[in-house]
Amino acid sequence: MPLIDTARFLQDLNELRQIGKYKTGVHRPTYSPQDMESRRWLVARLEECGLEAEIDGIGNVFGRHRGSGPHLLVGSHIESQNYAGWLDGALGVMAGVALARAGLPVDVAAFADEEGHFEGGFLGSKSLIGILSEEEIDRSRSRNDGQPLREALAAAGLAGRKRLRLDPLRYKGFFEMHIEQGTQLENAGLQAGVVTGIVAIWQWRIIIEGMQDHAGGTTMAERRDAGLTAVRLLAMLDQEMPKVCGPRSVWTTGRITLDPGAPSIIPGSADILFQFRDIDLPTLERMEDCLRRCVQEMNRRERCTVTLHNVSKSLPALCEPKMMAALDAAAERLAPGKWQRMPSGAGHDAQYIARVMPVAMLFTPSIKGISHHWAEDTKEEDLALCCEILGEAAKSYLEA
Amino acid sequence: MPLIDTARFLQDLNELRQIGKYKTGVHRPTYSPQDMESRRWLVARLEECGLEAEIDGIGNVFGRHRGSGPHLLVGSHIESQNYAGWLDGALGVMAGVALARAGLPVDVAAFADEEGHFEGGFLGSKSLIGILSEEEIDRSRSRNDGQPLREALAAAGLAGRKRLRLDPLRYKGFFEMHIEQGTQLENAGLQAGVVTGIVAIWQWRIIIEGMQDHAGGTTMAERRDAGLTAVRLLAMLDQEMPKVCGPRSVWTTGRITLDPGAPSIIPGSADILFQFRDIDLPTLERMEDCLRRCVQEMNRRERCTVTLHNVSKSLPALCEPKMMAALDAAAERLAPGKWQRMPSGAGHDAQYIARVMPVAMLFTPSIKGISHHWAEDTKEEDLALCCEILGEAAKSYLEA
Repeated sequence: MPLIDTARFLQDLNELRQIGKYKTGVHRPTYSPQDMESRRWLVARLEECGLEAEIDGIGNVFGRHRGSGPHLLVGSHIESQNYAGWLDGALGVMAGVALARAGLPVDVAAFADEEGHFEGGFLGSKSLIGILSEEEIDRSRSRNDGQPLREALAAAGLAGRKRLRLDPLRYKGFFEMHIEQGTQLENAGLQAGVVTGIVAIWQWRIIIEGMQDHAGGTTMAERRDAGLTAVRLLAMLDQEMPKVCGPRSVWTTGRITLDPGAPSIIPGSADILFQFRDIDLPTLERMEDCLRRCVQEMNRRERCTVTLHNVSKSLPALCEPKMMAALDAAAERLAPGKWQRMPSGAGHDAQYIARVMPVAMLFTPSIKGISHHWAEDTKEEDLALCCEILGEAAKSYLEA
Repeated sequence: MPLIDTARFLQDLNELRQIGKYKTGVHRPTYSPQDMESRRWLVARLEECGLEAEIDGIGNVFGRHRGSGPHLLVGSHIESQNYAGWLDGALGVMAGVALARAGLPVDVAAFADEEGHFEGGFLGSKSLIGILSEEEIDRSRSRNDGQPLREALAAAGLAGRKRLRLDPLRYKGFFEMHIEQGTQLENAGLQAGVVTGIVAIWQWRIIIEGMQDHAGGTTMAERRDAGLTAVRLLAMLDQEMPKVCGPRSVWTTGRITLDPGAPSIIPGSADILFQFRDIDLPTLERMEDCLRRCVQEMNRRERCTVTLHNVSKSLPALCEPKMMAALDAAAERLAPGKWQRMPSGAGHDAQYIARVMPVAMLFTPSIKGISHHWAEDTKEEDLALCCEILGEAAKSYLEA
């Protein structure tokens, strides 16, 4: 008899999909009525599996195995981006439920606000490892509508509830299953990805100060055009970054805001959101150095002033070799030749949990790589297969 | 006795400055109560000068000389940009009043909405030359708050009023005095600019379509980053435009909008506002050709699709040689060696009036080139001098 009841797993997933349903996806922003309904629904599922389940003071759903260890922690998040996919997060939580249903000694967690509807993001996993302060909660507001986090917690009925803390010594490790949110697996015709680590994201704001002027009255020679300096800097980064990056590095300009942004006014200032990602710290440091040199060169050449502001620097989180080996072996047994190792370019709760215990992640393919959109999807056979791989790997790693 | 009473001219200007006063500037958006107060105030001034004055159905203030010709038309606009300068427009209108006070046979006009608070812009000068249709008035809305133009006209008490039409045969030409809105005169230590013509503005929207994707899950090789293609195109224009432009050509990217504009999302589309200006039609055509070749090259090289949309193409308006010669002579007599000829990089009512009669413009310096801001200013001695130059030139041109 197989370890995992994959039919029941898919049935659970589809039941959860009805809560906050939007087209073929879901709309369950953190602490919304739909989100809270899904959390209560999850508590009932966890209790069905014999776990001791509760929702804590930051909204984490936590199901505790009643028996003896060694234990594993399994999970992900249950809220969604706005009008987004049915699997992002939910898949990893329901995989945890499936492992619990199979009788494995697992605790299951749905970490609150991985999706960052509130400033800070990753509220649940940060809170569980003890790095989310009350002051941070006091300050944080919704990125959607500015509502203070405290108000949202109160409206969700969570005010005054105790926040849980993980006991790292209870666990042999944390497994998170997630959709790939890319096309690497699909393009290679593969069914599973064993994640080697989660990239670090280093985010920057580049502010350029020039002089706002009338586009008709000011000659090219007189201009201090902040928009033009922005273009020149970004074109230089486009030339220079490939010389220092690693094979899987990525860098992205997400926004360029020219002020005032009118057709006949020379932009007086420019504000650029820029980020790069890699799993390797020395590579990240080379990319930062490249960025700083390009900014320095612009300040030498241009008539505008360029300043670089670091917004955030996360740390790369490497997966545990023994947990990866268990996933490799299970994948090769259940899907021979149809899996690969790969880094995760996106952030996940596992990157925080990795600070207190060994972690590993398993990726399912994403159809066309669509993510953060209601059209996100994965073939049912891939979902079922990966849940089986996860179950086998968890079992063998526990027994090792 | 000098032709122009410059003390009275400055007194009139300062009186007008009190209407809609904001810091050292004014706030008189078209058809606002402040704007309408200034128009009624102007009617009274024109009547003081013996002109037959009225406000027409689009808000033009028009003062008609009662005596025999040949006549000149003199004027500019009286509304301001939001929270903007006291001289932009008002200077040319009050110069017209000063010439009328001096007994010259001039009609004086304050053309409505040169500043383009309503879609279309230049409503008054277009209406006076017969190219503003009722349908255009029906369609136009405020760029500030979306109010339909018809509603704004009704609220200003102008609904149902007749719109005036110019009789071109009545006039030997149109003179418009205006602040430079640049620093050419100030930097050269000059007090007056005889305008050779008003540049044409060719405006474009460049739309780039790529693929929105997660900035972590999508490798550099897979991306179709619309923002990156935008940067490459604009960097190419920065390289190529100088090879085809004229000595006074200008080109400006006023806005770059990346969609969705988030730090961790590869932009799926980019929308760029781009324009160039020159007084010479073959130069404009070379610049358009350069723009089209760069777009074509991007479509060859890049993984995104770039489309070019023309927003508008105005025609360059050349000033009348005999009117310029009259201004040259008056400037050289009153400010020897302290003036120059120069093109106007900004649009003015004169560009529309030029379609039906000869025109000329005289520029005063702008302190630090500040324009469309309440800090805009010009030295009183320069204002007075230029009004004298205009009066002398008008007199000699009428007599020629």
